[in-house]
Amino acid sequence: MNDPSSEFDLIRWFRARSPKTSPQTLLGIGDDCAILRPNPGRDWVVTTDMLMDGRHFNLATDSPQAVGYKAMAVNLSDIAAMAARPLAALVAVAIPLSARNSVEIGQGLHQGLQEAAHPFGVTLIGGDTNAWHGPLVISVTLLGETTDRGPVLRSGARVGDIIFVTGPLGGSLLGRHLRPEPRVLEALALHAAAPIHALIDISDGLASDLSHILEESGNLGALLDPLAIPIHSDTVTRSGPPGKTRLHHALNDGEDFELCLVVSPNDAVLLENNPPPPARLFRVGEIIASPGLWLQNPKGPPTPLQPAGFDHLKG
Amino acid sequence: MNDPSSEFDLIRWFRARSPKTSPQTLLGIGDDCAILRPNPGRDWVVTTDMLMDGRHFNLATDSPQAVGYKAMAVNLSDIAAMAARPLAALVAVAIPLSARNSVEIGQGLHQGLQEAAHPFGVTLIGGDTNAWHGPLVISVTLLGETTDRGPVLRSGARVGDIIFVTGPLGGSLLGRHLRPEPRVLEALALHAAAPIHALIDISDGLASDLSHILEESGNLGALLDPLAIPIHSDTVTRSGPPGKTRLHHALNDGEDFELCLVVSPNDAVLLENNPPPPARLFRVGEIIASPGLWLQNPKGPPTPLQPAGFDHLKG
Repeated sequence: MNDPSSEFDLIRWFRARSPKTSPQTLLGIGDDCAILRPNPGRDWVVTTDMLMDGRHFNLATDSPQAVGYKAMAVNLSDIAAMAARPLAALVAVAIPLSARNSVEIGQGLHQGLQEAAHPFGVTLIGGDTNAWHGPLVISVTLLGETTDRGPVLRSGARVGDIIFVTGPLGGSLLGRHLRPEPRVLEALALHAAAPIHALIDISDGLASDLSHILEESGNLGALLDPLAIPIHSDTVTRSGPPGKTRLHHALNDGEDFELCLVVSPNDAVLLENNPPPPARLFRVGEIIASPGLWLQNPKGPPTPLQPAGFDHLKG
Repeated sequence: MNDPSSEFDLIRWFRARSPKTSPQTLLGIGDDCAILRPNPGRDWVVTTDMLMDGRHFNLATDSPQAVGYKAMAVNLSDIAAMAARPLAALVAVAIPLSARNSVEIGQGLHQGLQEAAHPFGVTLIGGDTNAWHGPLVISVTLLGETTDRGPVLRSGARVGDIIFVTGPLGGSLLGRHLRPEPRVLEALALHAAAPIHALIDISDGLASDLSHILEESGNLGALLDPLAIPIHSDTVTRSGPPGKTRLHHALNDGEDFELCLVVSPNDAVLLENNPPPPARLFRVGEIIASPGLWLQNPKGPPTPLQPAGFDHLKG
């Protein structure tokens, strides 16, 4: 096949590589809209995330395929954070006309998008392909459906509930952030095994994202055990300002994309005794009435913790 | 209220101005995903369009409000092009940190988005707010539901069918392109009055967009009456390369956002005799078996017409 040489050819190239229909997709790429048929009794969840060159990746060093993978994976992570099943994606891109061949960039993105989407049965059902003289921007919208247990919000935590995370935290920006493993299957398995009260994916750092759960659940608090928080080995090699401990990185580094979940004390024991594969579980603390984040302190009363997460607009 | 000073404050500002729920929206802005409840028996249509500074608008001269309006309107136009009912939108933005106050830009965009969405009962249910050192990019994803008659694709035209457009064409880029009036109510009214065989919104020019209908309907042709094509008064003042006639502009200028529809000959008469408000109808030609676009020629056989529409990737 010859290389596509215009927008319409690139769209044809995408279309040829995307199924026209699937059980939920009556119509995929190629018309003014895609058409989806909801399964009776299911609600839909939908999320969108935009990635920009120089902010979320660097096209000078990261391949278009890696960028496409990450763009899909971070959206899959948001669907996982509702304990829902991802189904179909739309992708809008602004491809730079300078730098490299814009068609090669488009094809690389597509390859990475598919690589992340395929393991979860997600199909590419539409999009918008543009080129310009600015840096690469890619925006993915992902649709999914709820399961029998319904979606899990951030707002369901109760005092006495137990807080878990699904993997070690920190140091993601050293490189792991390009290859997040969206915890879709973990969330579905956990929610099927026991009703999750509150759930979020860790994109801005555990401290910051757990604070959203606390705030949305009615200004509750969390008492965390600093010795129980799993710290990723990447934090060892991470260079940072002096005085930042590995715990600080585990609490405040962004883009881990592990899940933070809150369940009842009884279900916490049940899940710890029989963690539903492929989920891993690390008990890191409990929900308390005293608002805010607190670190257990063996030498005295708990010490308050200020989230130092990433602010996209200030950064 | 004080101006929001960070991303989270801006999201709170958006959230305070968006309804938390609506009949179809169980959960709006503020969690990892929005949650939608499909109406039984309805399918969903979904589309996405991205607008970039310097391509689809110029932030140096166009207000953020005008940009927000256009970003929503072009997506509404895609829902109209399926003869579906728009319901809910997600918006991802990359706001420039330089130029102006990024918070003011975000608020202006929001105002324009709401201005376009509100007349159609569309609610803003989610998004992604980013800032960067690049130009403004805004990507809207719009969801809608089908009506009793189902969606209208591009692929349903048949030989002998009649081709209409819903308004005068050409010259949009002189300024009208920022204030497109999405033909949502027109499409719903027309499709309720008579089953539309094929439908598209005119974003790349009548010649180019009608060609999509012809191609998708099985390589059919269209015989157009050059005297019947309604030409917008904007084309009078349009300066362009010498030799480009007003008809050329009406056929090839992009961003008109009128609809091009194809119906059976009987329904064409029915619609012309009783055009369902607010739709206006201009009969411009008919579907023929001979592939491609043809212009009626009173002095001889029809002359072939090459679409000269806009190619986003070559542009």
